[in-house]
Amino acid sequence: MAEPQRPNGLIANKGIELLTFGTPNGWKASIILEELKEAYGKEYTWQSINIMQNIQKEEWFTKLGPNGRIPVIVDHDKGGFAVQEGLAILAYLTRHYDPDHKFSFTDPLDISRAEQWMAWQHGGLGPMQGQANHFNRFTKERIPYGMQRYTGETERLVGILDSHLKNQDYLVGNKYSIADISSFGWVNILRFSGIDLDQFPNLKNWWKRIHERPAVQKGLAVPSKSKFDNETYEQQLKEDPEFAAKEKELREAINKAKEQYGYVYKSP
Amino acid sequence: MAEPQRPNGLIANKGIELLTFGTPNGWKASIILEELKEAYGKEYTWQSINIMQNIQKEEWFTKLGPNGRIPVIVDHDKGGFAVQEGLAILAYLTRHYDPDHKFSFTDPLDISRAEQWMAWQHGGLGPMQGQANHFNRFTKERIPYGMQRYTGETERLVGILDSHLKNQDYLVGNKYSIADISSFGWVNILRFSGIDLDQFPNLKNWWKRIHERPAVQKGLAVPSKSKFDNETYEQQLKEDPEFAAKEKELREAINKAKEQYGYVYKSP
Repeated sequence: MAEPQRPNGLIANKGIELLTFGTPNGWKASIILEELKEAYGKEYTWQSINIMQNIQKEEWFTKLGPNGRIPVIVDHDKGGFAVQEGLAILAYLTRHYDPDHKFSFTDPLDISRAEQWMAWQHGGLGPMQGQANHFNRFTKERIPYGMQRYTGETERLVGILDSHLKNQDYLVGNKYSIADISSFGWVNILRFSGIDLDQFPNLKNWWKRIHERPAVQKGLAVPSKSKFDNETYEQQLKEDPEFAAKEKELREAINKAKEQYGYVYKSP
Repeated sequence: MAEPQRPNGLIANKGIELLTFGTPNGWKASIILEELKEAYGKEYTWQSINIMQNIQKEEWFTKLGPNGRIPVIVDHDKGGFAVQEGLAILAYLTRHYDPDHKFSFTDPLDISRAEQWMAWQHGGLGPMQGQANHFNRFTKERIPYGMQRYTGETERLVGILDSHLKNQDYLVGNKYSIADISSFGWVNILRFSGIDLDQFPNLKNWWKRIHERPAVQKGLAVPSKSKFDNETYEQQLKEDPEFAAKEKELREAINKAKEQYGYVYKSP
């Protein structure tokens, strides 16, 4: 089979075109698009933007998404209007293509509640968990200060979700919505980020509840299944002793970093 | 004069009550509230939440804003509905109290454009510049890796604003709006964050243009004027040789950290 061509421009001329990769931010867009497809039959096109190859930094891409990050959507039915930033993509797609408000709200206070949770994810959980991944996994040398700072902040944030979900199945209005989709992807890689999901039982049940939706399963496979999600992580832990040993060592390093800087878990 | 009492609950019973402190995120709320006051005569009440004293972590506060961060607004005219997260506060206040859309939009694509810039600030510029401040100013020991990582990322983000403002006075629809207010506060402390505003001439002009608005001046004084804004910083640099020497040393440390890790400025 020929190597797929490196993307160098848009490929569709109608409907929504999604430029994405298999990350928590990418999943926001692919999951809502799969939900809209299932609910309304709305089709979409996607291209895989391999972020390891920095395709998202190329000029054709930054013309659409100046921040040089995935996901970006282009609405060919609105003159090629481009939308970047996960929160704005979830809002745009439901504003235009969720006429029955199956994943969004009409009550102004519920609209605000959803907006608040999406902003909370977009400005807190996402960036901070992203830094935890960076310091736990991707720096050349280990920097304990960064490891404990961001793993700790992610735990604090996750604790807020867990306590909010104590008496309700979904974040807003007891209905699955874009507020849930926004945080789901990051919760879906919590184990990879060095957080024990079992410590947050309400959140774990919420994660399972969303994870088993058919459209979510489809969205998680666009452009291809991740190796970092909780499910794959747990499986690998069981099946691959070498992986398990490396992960155990990482957990110990994170715990040591926390001790070194006197980190204490605290979340309302 | 008696010491002002430590806030321990809400004090108003009508209109908007703002719980805030003099930070870039706090300014988003105080500036839009001052603009709405000037444009429509809408009054509001505020309380100073001293974040150094962790008042925002107390139970009465986290009941309103579970994330334990300022700003939070409470709308006493909507049954005490509370809103946390800057982006959600800007959207809520204009949705309900900007009937003539003086600071917001009616065209669906402009609504999305504003939402995209606000999300970009909320998930990018804010969190990353916040980390730059942390590593440049607030760690006990200097950690060069963190200093260059976040100062560099802030520069990249600021470069995006600067190039977007090349041919327009404001971020969306050539009109001053909540999209501008969202980023203004962070740009207003860029010098404190170790970034030279003079390197970004379009952004500097935009900053000046917004800074001179009477409502912005008033918003920046709620609850009290900051010592970290660009204006105060520059003045102190001129008047206080000891301060200037310390700042020079910090700039050199940031530059050295950038060299150490081979940082190269790059922004579209």
